[in-house]
Amino acid sequence: MAKKFVYHYFNIKGRGEIPRLLFAAAGVEYTDDRIEFSDWPNIKGTTPLGALPYLEVDGQKFPESVAIARYLANEFGLAGKSNLDKLKIDVLVDQMILLRESAVTMHFEKDETKKVELMKKFKEEQLPKCFGYIEKALSENSSGFLVGDQLTWGDLALIDLDDMLHNFGNLINLDNFPKLTAHKKQIEASPQISTYLKHRPVTSH
Amino acid sequence: MAKKFVYHYFNIKGRGEIPRLLFAAAGVEYTDDRIEFSDWPNIKGTTPLGALPYLEVDGQKFPESVAIARYLANEFGLAGKSNLDKLKIDVLVDQMILLRESAVTMHFEKDETKKVELMKKFKEEQLPKCFGYIEKALSENSSGFLVGDQLTWGDLALIDLDDMLHNFGNLINLDNFPKLTAHKKQIEASPQISTYLKHRPVTSH
Ligand SMILES: N[C@@H](CCC(=O)N[C@@H](CS)C(=O)NCC(=O)O)C(=O)O
Ligand SMILES: N[C@@H](CCC(=O)N[C@@H](CS)C(=O)NCC(=O)O)C(=O)O
Repeated sequence: MAKKFVYHYFNIKGRGEIPRLLFAAAGVEYTDDRIEFSDWPNIKGTTPLGALPYLEVDGQKFPESVAIARYLANEFGLAGKSNLDKLKIDVLVDQMILLRESAVTMHFEKDETKKVELMKKFKEEQLPKCFGYIEKALSENSSGFLVGDQLTWGDLALIDLDDMLHNFGNLINLDNFPKLTAHKKQIEASPQISTYLKHRPVTSH
Repeated sequence: MAKKFVYHYFNIKGRGEIPRLLFAAAGVEYTDDRIEFSDWPNIKGTTPLGALPYLEVDGQKFPESVAIARYLANEFGLAGKSNLDKLKIDVLVDQMILLRESAVTMHFEKDETKKVELMKKFKEEQLPKCFGYIEKALSENSSGFLVGDQLTWGDLALIDLDDMLHNFGNLINLDNFPKLTAHKKQIEASPQISTYLKHRPVTSH
């Protein structure tokens, strides 16, 4: 019997969009429970670790956005074909998550002096390091996908990161990353993804 | 043909011990390249991301300790039997890594006032949260293993975290966590692991 999935997250993309992209890419049905911030205080205590997102699989609750994404990728055949491909994806996703967390910290920093410092570090060190590594991976793989010769959750994580960096104030200039630009076009043009991107709820980030 | 593994890390346990525990548990041969800190400046530029550990698989280099551990677990049949078991392990390991990184930050903090603050947060919030979640997982699983009914990399990550918290100044009182205490005994008593623990190079952390 097919598993019953209920996915709980705020009504933003934030840390919670990659699992939704996976459901869309695989065409798998699920309940997309979008929680209003005003309801959060009442809901917090019912979650596994006091945070969102979490995924229910036949009633069992699991936290951690990246672990959830990897699980869905394994379930849906979007996790890479070999253990080495899985490793390559994990390493790339690790770099993306690190960069995302730096962007979040910077974006929500209230102290202006600190924010300027964080921005400098972000633009001069963290972003070039992360996207240098990604650009190299894309260059070494002729399929246009990040790893292997078909779509994986690594590709979805990458278009989501790019989207987030734009929403946080055009933090990335795609002109500097030609392979990344081509990758984004290719992934966003795939039928399931392009349909999802057109129809998902519009949120600021 | 069997893959050729060369594993590069400093001559400490630190962030690099879980892969070594995996090689030991699986009885798989590898080259354990232990790099002296004095040699590091010359080696840094030859690593994938300017950091250790990294793993060579038939000459291909891969960074990121956790990704490496998950890969070896997949290769050695120590990653859990089902996708759901893999998810459970990933979520638990995520909590362990978060706690480890907090412990590292605290341990190496030079400002005494800040260190006291970090220690308070660690003891009163971070540690109870992480080990509360782990203790619950152990309570819900009658096998004595963290997930499923056989050894996985989650078990190895857990004994390594416990070891590290002791090396950093007895940060954890096992009396508060009876299931964890029993788990540690069970895992450390397994023949391959107990042999490895007896014979590994002695380092302070
Ligand atoms: N490591 C977790 C972080 C979860 C997290 O921090 N979630 C935030 C929203 S993105 C949250 O729930 N904040 C509300 C709160 O902590 O009360 C993950 O990736 O899922
Ligand atoms: N996320 C990485 C972190 C790697 C890391 O920070 N490694 C440290 C040693 S534990 C290092 O290489 N430090 C020396 C340096 O950065 O020059 C991992 O888990 O492998």
